[in-house]
Amino acid sequence: MLAPARAEDGYDLWLRYRPLPAAQVAAYAPEMQHLRMDVDSPARAAARDELSNALQGLLGSAPQPVDRMRPGTLVIGTPASSPWLAGLAADVDGLGDEGFLVRRMRVDGQPAIVIAANADAGLVYGTFRFLRLLQTGQSLEALDLREAPRVKLRVLNHWDDLNRYVERGYSGQSIWDWHRLPGWLDPRYTDYARANASIGINGTVLNNVNANARILTPQYLEKVRALAGVMRPYGIRVYLSARFSAPMEIGGLATSDPLDPEVQRWWKAKADEIYGLIPDFGGFLVKANSEGQPGPQDYGRSHADGANLLADALAPHGGVVMWRAFVYSEEEPDDRHKQAYNEFVPHDGEFRDNVLVQVKNGAIDFQPREPFHPLFGAMPRTPLVMEFQITKEYLGFSTHLAYKGTLYEEVLRADTRVDGEGSTVANVVDGSLHGHVLSGMAGVANIGSDRSWSGSHFDQANWYAYGRLAWDPDLSSRAIAEEWVRMTFSNDPALVAPVVGMMMDSREAVVDYTGALGLHHLMGRGHHYGPGPWVDGGPRADWTSVYYHRATGEGIGFDRTTGGSDAVSQYAPELAAVFDDPTRVPEEFLLWFHHVPWDHPMRSGQPLWDELVMRYDRGVDTVRRMRATWDALQEHVDGERHRQVAAFLAIQENEAQWWRDASIAYFQTFARRPLPAGHAPPPRSLEYYQSLEFPHAPGDTQ
Amino acid sequence: MLAPARAEDGYDLWLRYRPLPAAQVAAYAPEMQHLRMDVDSPARAAARDELSNALQGLLGSAPQPVDRMRPGTLVIGTPASSPWLAGLAADVDGLGDEGFLVRRMRVDGQPAIVIAANADAGLVYGTFRFLRLLQTGQSLEALDLREAPRVKLRVLNHWDDLNRYVERGYSGQSIWDWHRLPGWLDPRYTDYARANASIGINGTVLNNVNANARILTPQYLEKVRALAGVMRPYGIRVYLSARFSAPMEIGGLATSDPLDPEVQRWWKAKADEIYGLIPDFGGFLVKANSEGQPGPQDYGRSHADGANLLADALAPHGGVVMWRAFVYSEEEPDDRHKQAYNEFVPHDGEFRDNVLVQVKNGAIDFQPREPFHPLFGAMPRTPLVMEFQITKEYLGFSTHLAYKGTLYEEVLRADTRVDGEGSTVANVVDGSLHGHVLSGMAGVANIGSDRSWSGSHFDQANWYAYGRLAWDPDLSSRAIAEEWVRMTFSNDPALVAPVVGMMMDSREAVVDYTGALGLHHLMGRGHHYGPGPWVDGGPRADWTSVYYHRATGEGIGFDRTTGGSDAVSQYAPELAAVFDDPTRVPEEFLLWFHHVPWDHPMRSGQPLWDELVMRYDRGVDTVRRMRATWDALQEHVDGERHRQVAAFLAIQENEAQWWRDASIAYFQTFARRPLPAGHAPPPRSLEYYQSLEFPHAPGDTQ
Repeated sequence: MLAPARAEDGYDLWLRYRPLPAAQVAAYAPEMQHLRMDVDSPARAAARDELSNALQGLLGSAPQPVDRMRPGTLVIGTPASSPWLAGLAADVDGLGDEGFLVRRMRVDGQPAIVIAANADAGLVYGTFRFLRLLQTGQSLEALDLREAPRVKLRVLNHWDDLNRYVERGYSGQSIWDWHRLPGWLDPRYTDYARANASIGINGTVLNNVNANARILTPQYLEKVRALAGVMRPYGIRVYLSARFSAPMEIGGLATSDPLDPEVQRWWKAKADEIYGLIPDFGGFLVKANSEGQPGPQDYGRSHADGANLLADALAPHGGVVMWRAFVYSEEEPDDRHKQAYNEFVPHDGEFRDNVLVQVKNGAIDFQPREPFHPLFGAMPRTPLVMEFQITKEYLGFSTHLAYKGTLYEEVLRADTRVDGEGSTVANVVDGSLHGHVLSGMAGVANIGSDRSWSGSHFDQANWYAYGRLAWDPDLSSRAIAEEWVRMTFSNDPALVAPVVGMMMDSREAVVDYTGALGLHHLMGRGHHYGPGPWVDGGPRADWTSVYYHRATGEGIGFDRTTGGSDAVSQYAPELAAVFDDPTRVPEEFLLWFHHVPWDHPMRSGQPLWDELVMRYDRGVDTVRRMRATWDALQEHVDGERHRQVAAFLAIQENEAQWWRDASIAYFQTFARRPLPAGHAPPPRSLEYYQSLEFPHAPGDTQ
Repeated sequence: MLAPARAEDGYDLWLRYRPLPAAQVAAYAPEMQHLRMDVDSPARAAARDELSNALQGLLGSAPQPVDRMRPGTLVIGTPASSPWLAGLAADVDGLGDEGFLVRRMRVDGQPAIVIAANADAGLVYGTFRFLRLLQTGQSLEALDLREAPRVKLRVLNHWDDLNRYVERGYSGQSIWDWHRLPGWLDPRYTDYARANASIGINGTVLNNVNANARILTPQYLEKVRALAGVMRPYGIRVYLSARFSAPMEIGGLATSDPLDPEVQRWWKAKADEIYGLIPDFGGFLVKANSEGQPGPQDYGRSHADGANLLADALAPHGGVVMWRAFVYSEEEPDDRHKQAYNEFVPHDGEFRDNVLVQVKNGAIDFQPREPFHPLFGAMPRTPLVMEFQITKEYLGFSTHLAYKGTLYEEVLRADTRVDGEGSTVANVVDGSLHGHVLSGMAGVANIGSDRSWSGSHFDQANWYAYGRLAWDPDLSSRAIAEEWVRMTFSNDPALVAPVVGMMMDSREAVVDYTGALGLHHLMGRGHHYGPGPWVDGGPRADWTSVYYHRATGEGIGFDRTTGGSDAVSQYAPELAAVFDDPTRVPEEFLLWFHHVPWDHPMRSGQPLWDELVMRYDRGVDTVRRMRATWDALQEHVDGERHRQVAAFLAIQENEAQWWRDASIAYFQTFARRPLPAGHAPPPRSLEYYQSLEFPHAPGDTQ
């Protein structure tokens, strides 16, 4: 009996379906004794099975199928195919294929709960939405929901290599067991599809953007087809990262020049081959001319030339190209911050209709805090995909509790001002600001073979929050955290409030103990685990820490003002003026945009150095408080999960202290000031912190 | 509800403790209502907890602790510390620390079942032994068992790297989560210790024999200490693979010469440091001067010099050195088969008392069948550790059903004849033949992060069988298979007989479809997955296939007779004479020792070529039969495990056919003979089979 019954090991994610309290069962059960649903497709079967398993778990009994209305019947179907729902035709109009409504209403004169949609995908989403109501203990009185996704392509990006190594993965191996595919379909694939469908994700890019061309060979496409078959009933399309040099590497061509007819023929033939196997294949994600990846510039062509090459091959089949804007020249730029903007803005309008440009949330690289990427709003004629990182490359790997919902929300709500007030990043991404049909959001997955999928219980919340925000970019991160806590742990108010509180404070704590006030890119070289503000030298300056913090005896910070690198001018004028002015720039971005003296007066009244030290300690204190909060919740959480979270919080506290001590020890050599009263000096020498090595830290690029 | 209650996903291994049939519960339960046991050590607590969990699961209730005899009491203790068991002092005498007795007897006038031993380790083993009786549905009438292990060191070797890559691992990543150690102790470590203790394994070498010196740094020793703490209550000692060049790599010395006083001081200090952290540390495993590993020969010293260097450092603490004999010179030898013998026999008697030489079961490398290694019996003054491979590097990775218990048994029962008849390999290994105090058996683990530990349900049986045979090398592989099937699946005779039958036939099937009659080393280069009889060239001849099969237009086989490489002379004269004679050599070793013409007459009456083809097809047919047997067992096995095994058997049938087709296509180019009647020609060209590539196959050396 190695595993106790229904071990709370995290595998169930937020779909645990554990028995509800008797009062709720009494309230819900009578309304869902029966199920009226035509199950004539794999998608409907998936929705029906989910509903049966869930209600069996939550209420103790699954609804019985019926073919006519009775008291206590759930009705699921489309007005088009179910005459008894014909009256809803107008109500589902405009919901598209993925929207749904969940409504308490009369059907054939009987009171009923109805889940209606225009298509199977909507029925699947509506079913999960309905189950979330029960899981979170909502009242069904006056039930009347009508929802459709704001963003069209809601995609996970797996940075998974074909040998199952996951770049920047901290949760074990890739869940894609390529070697045993297609012969063995791990049931985990189905659970992956269920979990994603439950939060509205409708696409998955199976392989790393640092792509291996072999994924496009027949040997692997057979495996991809097998996975696509598992995803299909859950409305999830499979995409692949395409290596731009594939025509040479696996096609035997002499060039990959996008304007070469042979190359164009090769990609068309490859697309035809793929769609012959996978009719609903989503398309290609491409990282080109970035960090050593091949691309159109190898032939003097533009990113638009490269993207359009693939777009033309996919267009006949309805596929899309997601072309990443994460590029910076091989020669050292004056400011890496400006590269993507300078590379892409000139090409706005040159991309095919089935091309989206995928832009990271910030201009550097998934730091604990960055201002939104200046490309958002700057390419009105091109749909831009928001790329968020779910895996915590820079936020403590899997052992630090850091809820990224607040980070996503902060970026999405940022106002680009490109069309006056209210030009939020969310409105750029959902296509509404500039009237795009295509829109997309991508999340770099934190999913691996670990039993808990994400490496820690709380990291599951980042996967969950990403999906919910991709569905509706205006959701509140607090509301998302609350529904996740209710489904993942319990509806017990004694638990919900404090745990949501921990989550809401957690990301700011990471900002504080890794480097606040706009400091960024201060981590150890390569592994990105732990502090490395002293990192210098190496292949290129913009892969070092000193390049970004610019600390000297006089001051610290990267001057990106009009007088400096002028990165501020990549933002709308109103915003540029704010960022450009040290007295108006938000303090959390002070050192991002300005180089200021160590005694620069902060709004708190203290000089910069004192403020910085205070922030480091505040971050550690927050983690200490999170630990105390969690320890006090022992009787509200199963022992298995409580123990792991407690152990991880202990690791986080040690490492937060380490970040704080190492960073202060280093920056003090420039500031040459004492620590403010009440702040302890680092217990060890700077040399000690600099001597630590982590050659086997997980996730480092191979 | 992603995972149903008590999912049969294999995590529970053979310790499932599912409810027994009512009749058995009725028979067992009254005898174990109470438990009389002094629980005054972590080991006793572990035994008590195991017993409680197991009986709760098997019988529905755990025994209640009592401090005096009552009807239906289990009594567990040592005669030395429990006066009421004092009468057993004589009976446990000679059982050592690990032996035990399980007996139905009167205690204080009450009928009782007693588990008695001299020490905690024996109580843990006795408890698991007792539980196996219940799990396999044995009668407790006349219960009177008295057991002690025949082999002293029963060790698992993990070929696990510090980045969690497992060399020749087909079950996911290493279970050792070095990055999160020591802060996070995965409960899986405890379950690993329980599973091993249940089959008598008392040591584990945590890291790859291709060792990384970093494991010996303080940073990693802290992690090793944490693991040792989990293993300790289960009687399992932790060992480490030591890199011979560690004094230079992490010690800053200029040399690793075993005769250099600085080097000797460094190893003594390192051993002292380790024992300061881990008082019961087991010792070092070393792969030296083999396949590029550093070693004493780099300084013109002998293997004995190298082993004794480490032995002297460990001796004060009671540690041992396991020095691997898997060596072959960097220059191409006349016959790799002879290398280890030639290297080590001259040094017999030169090793310290705490050194054991670890020898693979065969002279080449864990092939589906090899004659026993000629070193067994040839070093009477040195204890030899038998090294078996549990992971299936050459037997189809994790998807082929191949029970290796029969392979282990075949080797252990082989008669070396060095001291006349009955000088079995088992008697060499257990130390009895030459009177050694130390003895050992090592198994190269097939354990990984896969939910089922071993990558497939049936591969768990190889871990199990290895442990059981290390405890008693004379056990029958069939009896072991039966007890494993009973514990892992059920006691239902309708299932036990056919499944045991599948297992007993399975390894011979692999021999047949990968190359029978003594053929060996015919696999693809590097990955060792699939057929590669054509493999030629590369860095050295003895890493190719053609080196071993020597096929020409005239014949096939490696001439190791007195007229050839003379490897036969490394065996005892009586045996050498048999192996040397093509008319007397066992047919399964014909081509191992002889090069014979394609029309060589076989005992079946047919010529060699026809016999070879017949064997290839027989292997495929056996797999086909295994599939049919398994499919017919559907209602006797839970759906979850039945589906996976069925899928894996389908993969195995395809790959067995592939091995057969590719091998026949290749050898026919030499034999230039038609296939015998009734045997289909390979469906595709030899070029096709030669064109297949598997660059991302798991487990290949990094």
